[in-house]
Amino acid sequence: MRPSQRQPDQLRTVRITRNFTRHAEGSVLIEMGDTRVLCTASVEENVPPFLRGKGQGWVTAEYGMLPRATHTRSSREAAKGKQTGRTQEIQRLIGRALRSVIDLKALGERQITLDCDVLQADGGTRCASITGAWVALYEACDKLVQAGKLPANPVRDHVAAISVGIYKGAPVLDLDYPEDSDCDTDMNVVMTGAGGIVEIQGTAEGEPFTREQMSVLVDLATLGVRHLVAAQQSALAA
Amino acid sequence: MRPSQRQPDQLRTVRITRNFTRHAEGSVLIEMGDTRVLCTASVEENVPPFLRGKGQGWVTAEYGMLPRATHTRSSREAAKGKQTGRTQEIQRLIGRALRSVIDLKALGERQITLDCDVLQADGGTRCASITGAWVALYEACDKLVQAGKLPANPVRDHVAAISVGIYKGAPVLDLDYPEDSDCDTDMNVVMTGAGGIVEIQGTAEGEPFTREQMSVLVDLATLGVRHLVAAQQSALAA
Amino acid sequence: MRPSQRQPDQLRTVRITRNFTRHAEGSVLIEMGDTRVLCTASVEENVPPFLRGKGQGWVTAEYGMLPRATHTRSSREAAKGKQTGRTQEIQRLIGRALRSVIDLKALGERQITLDCDVLQADGGTRCASITGAWVALYEACDKLVQAGKLPANPVRDHVAAISVGIYKGAPVLDLDYPEDSDCDTDMNVVMTGAGGIVEIQGTAEGEPFTREQMSVLVDLATLGVRHLVAAQQSALAA
Amino acid sequence: MRPSQRQPDQLRTVRITRNFTRHAEGSVLIEMGDTRVLCTASVEENVPPFLRGKGQGWVTAEYGMLPRATHTRSSREAAKGKQTGRTQEIQRLIGRALRSVIDLKALGERQITLDCDVLQADGGTRCASITGAWVALYEACDKLVQAGKLPANPVRDHVAAISVGIYKGAPVLDLDYPEDSDCDTDMNVVMTGAGGIVEIQGTAEGEPFTREQMSVLVDLATLGVRHLVAAQQSALAA
Amino acid sequence: MRPSQRQPDQLRTVRITRNFTRHAEGSVLIEMGDTRVLCTASVEENVPPFLRGKGQGWVTAEYGMLPRATHTRSSREAAKGKQTGRTQEIQRLIGRALRSVIDLKALGERQITLDCDVLQADGGTRCASITGAWVALYEACDKLVQAGKLPANPVRDHVAAISVGIYKGAPVLDLDYPEDSDCDTDMNVVMTGAGGIVEIQGTAEGEPFTREQMSVLVDLATLGVRHLVAAQQSALAA
Amino acid sequence: MRPSQRQPDQLRTVRITRNFTRHAEGSVLIEMGDTRVLCTASVEENVPPFLRGKGQGWVTAEYGMLPRATHTRSSREAAKGKQTGRTQEIQRLIGRALRSVIDLKALGERQITLDCDVLQADGGTRCASITGAWVALYEACDKLVQAGKLPANPVRDHVAAISVGIYKGAPVLDLDYPEDSDCDTDMNVVMTGAGGIVEIQGTAEGEPFTREQMSVLVDLATLGVRHLVAAQQSALAA
Repeated sequence: MRPSQRQPDQLRTVRITRNFTRHAEGSVLIEMGDTRVLCTASVEENVPPFLRGKGQGWVTAEYGMLPRATHTRSSREAAKGKQTGRTQEIQRLIGRALRSVIDLKALGERQITLDCDVLQADGGTRCASITGAWVALYEACDKLVQAGKLPANPVRDHVAAISVGIYKGAPVLDLDYPEDSDCDTDMNVVMTGAGGIVEIQGTAEGEPFTREQMSVLVDLATLGVRHLVAAQQSALAA
Repeated sequence: MRPSQRQPDQLRTVRITRNFTRHAEGSVLIEMGDTRVLCTASVEENVPPFLRGKGQGWVTAEYGMLPRATHTRSSREAAKGKQTGRTQEIQRLIGRALRSVIDLKALGERQITLDCDVLQADGGTRCASITGAWVALYEACDKLVQAGKLPANPVRDHVAAISVGIYKGAPVLDLDYPEDSDCDTDMNVVMTGAGGIVEIQGTAEGEPFTREQMSVLVDLATLGVRHLVAAQQSALAA
Repeated sequence: MRPSQRQPDQLRTVRITRNFTRHAEGSVLIEMGDTRVLCTASVEENVPPFLRGKGQGWVTAEYGMLPRATHTRSSREAAKGKQTGRTQEIQRLIGRALRSVIDLKALGERQITLDCDVLQADGGTRCASITGAWVALYEACDKLVQAGKLPANPVRDHVAAISVGIYKGAPVLDLDYPEDSDCDTDMNVVMTGAGGIVEIQGTAEGEPFTREQMSVLVDLATLGVRHLVAAQQSALAA
Repeated sequence: MRPSQRQPDQLRTVRITRNFTRHAEGSVLIEMGDTRVLCTASVEENVPPFLRGKGQGWVTAEYGMLPRATHTRSSREAAKGKQTGRTQEIQRLIGRALRSVIDLKALGERQITLDCDVLQADGGTRCASITGAWVALYEACDKLVQAGKLPANPVRDHVAAISVGIYKGAPVLDLDYPEDSDCDTDMNVVMTGAGGIVEIQGTAEGEPFTREQMSVLVDLATLGVRHLVAAQQSALAA
Repeated sequence: MRPSQRQPDQLRTVRITRNFTRHAEGSVLIEMGDTRVLCTASVEENVPPFLRGKGQGWVTAEYGMLPRATHTRSSREAAKGKQTGRTQEIQRLIGRALRSVIDLKALGERQITLDCDVLQADGGTRCASITGAWVALYEACDKLVQAGKLPANPVRDHVAAISVGIYKGAPVLDLDYPEDSDCDTDMNVVMTGAGGIVEIQGTAEGEPFTREQMSVLVDLATLGVRHLVAAQQSALAA
Repeated sequence: MRPSQRQPDQLRTVRITRNFTRHAEGSVLIEMGDTRVLCTASVEENVPPFLRGKGQGWVTAEYGMLPRATHTRSSREAAKGKQTGRTQEIQRLIGRALRSVIDLKALGERQITLDCDVLQADGGTRCASITGAWVALYEACDKLVQAGKLPANPVRDHVAAISVGIYKGAPVLDLDYPEDSDCDTDMNVVMTGAGGIVEIQGTAEGEPFTREQMSVLVDLATLGVRHLVAAQQSALAA
């Protein structure tokens, strides 16, 4: 039995709100149950030094958690003067995920930065960030098309992410915080709209897991991502 | 004529939403027109080293701006590894303002941290932070009373803040970003519910200002703070 | 009764010594009683990146306190690896004050940095820094004129600063350390030679202050600045 | 055809040299072809603050790369003043992997730090670090047993790691640098001696990968880890 | 011929002014010609962690250079967020020199910090720091004796330092900046009042130097230190 | 009697292994008894900003110690976020020593960085670094000659370094760790192949030393360096 009474293969309620703030070229609030992440896309008309003159663009991501997004206050990274290893790991993951579905040459010599800031955390913030940031990225590229700066949107496919895990012996989809902090295996799967796997990160927190368990978990994740892609489509259609 | 068509003594629409997030002891979204700041209050049952064993509590504040809260993206302080001078100045101001209306001895040996994070900026973020943080602080203290940890709320009076300035030669109340970036004098006034001045910071961006101008500006601010205190009361009554 | 036996409207002895060190384009030791600040002006023939090619100059300030300028040794900021919020707040204030009285276009594409280093502290170091730095700035500009690099001194007016406050219930001018650490209200006022207000920063350390108190304090400050401007004139005439 | 002429399922030559340096409680040089990592285990008789008094030990890891371990010199992290996100990601991975096979309660209130320093890099440094660090950890625990500080070695099983990937369309085992920098999918698999999966991290550098490809890759990795575990056993028996 | 017209074995004018500032337990301005260093000694009634409970005290030093102590402004270390290698090297040298002549056991469990801040630089600032800091240290210990905290001054002997070098082929004593920046060999010698060598640091900036040259340089330094010790004695007697 | 049973004028066994790693232009493992330092030379085809366009090259050095190179683990500088003063002092020394024997103009506008990383420490790491780095530097320059980028090797002479000291009252050559941590005087001498002194750094850890002792120590060092230069020659001839 899951603490939230959800079925093993049931996602939390997903809500994707576009135009949550007004300055960014793409601005999306994504909610997965009580997890809420603000994802903004900012377009800059230049690229980082290592790409100058190479005729292609770049997509990168930064991730942050408001100090009191969590049950107990965590210290502010800006005040401590450095980002934790966890933060850096997550923002690298988000960047890789998004770059896997955009044609960087078609983007031209510009950079899009996705800022994913967690306003409230209840597990699964890195997956929600990827799913929400994709919408913000798509929106920002659309504005470049509308402004006549690009002939077509260079985003080639959807990308979304979901966590799965083994909780009290059973495989479950979309772990919330109570599950996440008490599970045996935790796996994040990033997939495209076409169903290709872009990234898989599975960790045994307790007992090692087996090939069979892994297979069931990826099945669950595939199901979850399919729902998330549908939610992205609805959000863009709205 | 103000860009927003407001009267010289007209505040922007003020909205104070309590319980905006669920983990913090106090959580308030304050909106002054398009400026939106999330203020959370976090209670910790200990005090910083310099106060240990002194039989009193402490109230402190931290301030941050999401990278794309502004028209163009500003770099993330956590990524740069340090807070700007502006950020430090603002968080020191918020802390002083709140400490002026709370009985720290009555609070006991605990610390309350107010995190003010700007989700969207359109001028006046430090004033909005003070006004919103006061509500979050009050709420957090109320919970301590409800939990039987304090006999009475140690917050003795309201405190709120507003900016005033001389824009195109005329004194105006509550500057928004277009006014703020093009005014001659910019003044932030922090006042209590009883009308006492807690802090005044006036800066001539262009021409120096006179005693008379200063007097008119403080009148306007007094009016503005009165409205803000009423908004705080409504929010608490809701 | 003031600890120093001064009258409420009496400044400490002001001494401004030019050419205190030999390398800087302007070098001034200012003493306000036991407070001693070394202010040097350094001219560089280029401007910071944000001003390049804009046809104007820049004036900026840095502030430091020697570790044992104070009663007990404070740790060295260079050793800790960062400047405190207080230091940053003060150096921003000094920079703004000086920029308010210089014609940056007339200065041309060069930068003048004012270093204000406190050799001995007895209250009022930020105000002494502004008053002393103005002399160093003027002197540095004069050398540019003498060297034929500028047709006329771009400094348009004096600027000086003084603290006022409410000590044991009475308004007093030019707080020294014993007063500063035990006063109800502390206000720093920056004014031009013509009497315009450039910056006012008032803080209630204890009880909030009233409009009437504020008015008396600004009167006292006006008086104080007038004396300081005279001291600046004497120093330049010497 | 692989650049190294190896068969798709062929590991590079593995060499594990114990007692490579003399001060550490465990000191192992692991070589996977031209990749060489020095892994040392250091025992300290206390635990980090978050574990004090909890009756258990801790195992953690740090990772570094000598500036010229690589084809072109990379800058020294100590000189830059911070570790890259990649470094932090790797050292977190090594720590998790090792903790998965040690009984931390049986270790008692002591910490073992595994330092993995890459002397020469040719791909697969994080996997080599895990495989080598396990030997150093085992050795350090053995010394605690010999010294009578522990009744039995708390390491419960082997753990080793290997990279697999899709290179020029074909699944291959143990990527070297030329393969790693030109592959479509790169996957690191951490497994125990009993064959359980502890961690799996797969990333599509180019095209997304399929369930079937993933399955073949995990088969290859299982084979590779089996060889590595045998190499660990030989090294301990030597 | 030396730029300053001095004889090869002639020191610059030495001036040691005690009580230059009022808060420190020892406060000395030392001038070697145009080089001016403020040396303060601060006594704290505890020792650094590595000495706690060992029944002895500690003497340490910090060194800084005001940004415009030099011909062209150098950037402020506090603003850059770190001390240069040169600064660290010098403060380590000053600390070692002073510790060589004090009985740390007799000092008891307290620490004396010597802050050496260069107000104006014209070569030889590290040597002047040592010579001046010794006087400040002696003075601070004397106050501990006068306060009844120590039975006798734990400083056992004088220590002073001087630079020597080979300038235009000739050995000279006490290099000033024009000589220092254009010499072949630069040597700093730290000696006790009894004539023992505490530290010698010689560097060939151009051609390597010979045993014979080294011998002549140490002779010159011995002479110089003898004069400096006399100056220290006069300062203490004043 | 020395702990190692060596004669007072006996070096530890010196071993210089070239091509210890494969990527660097010069790669040398130097062993002085149990002290082992990996020295690599990296050539870059540009110079640091302060030398651009000056028609000369630059040689610089960085130094590091693996955390468990020592008896007890020391913390990793990259993790702490800064290099110690000792590290900076050593790397500055290595750089100066090498620059003293290379014709920087003949090197052309390129920079060679010597990375000296201590794999195992038993005293004398800075001296071993200089002696080993010289071989790596020579080798890297040789490769530039072989590649036709330089007409001749710009290294003009050997340079090597050795420590000497007064241990239990007697002058000894090449201190190992047990001697180094218990000696009265410790001196590092850097000399050229021609016998010129490039750098001498002597420190009295206990009693000050005399002119006579200094003379004996330099004699010993001269002897030691002669052996080291021979070892460098053998290594290059191999």
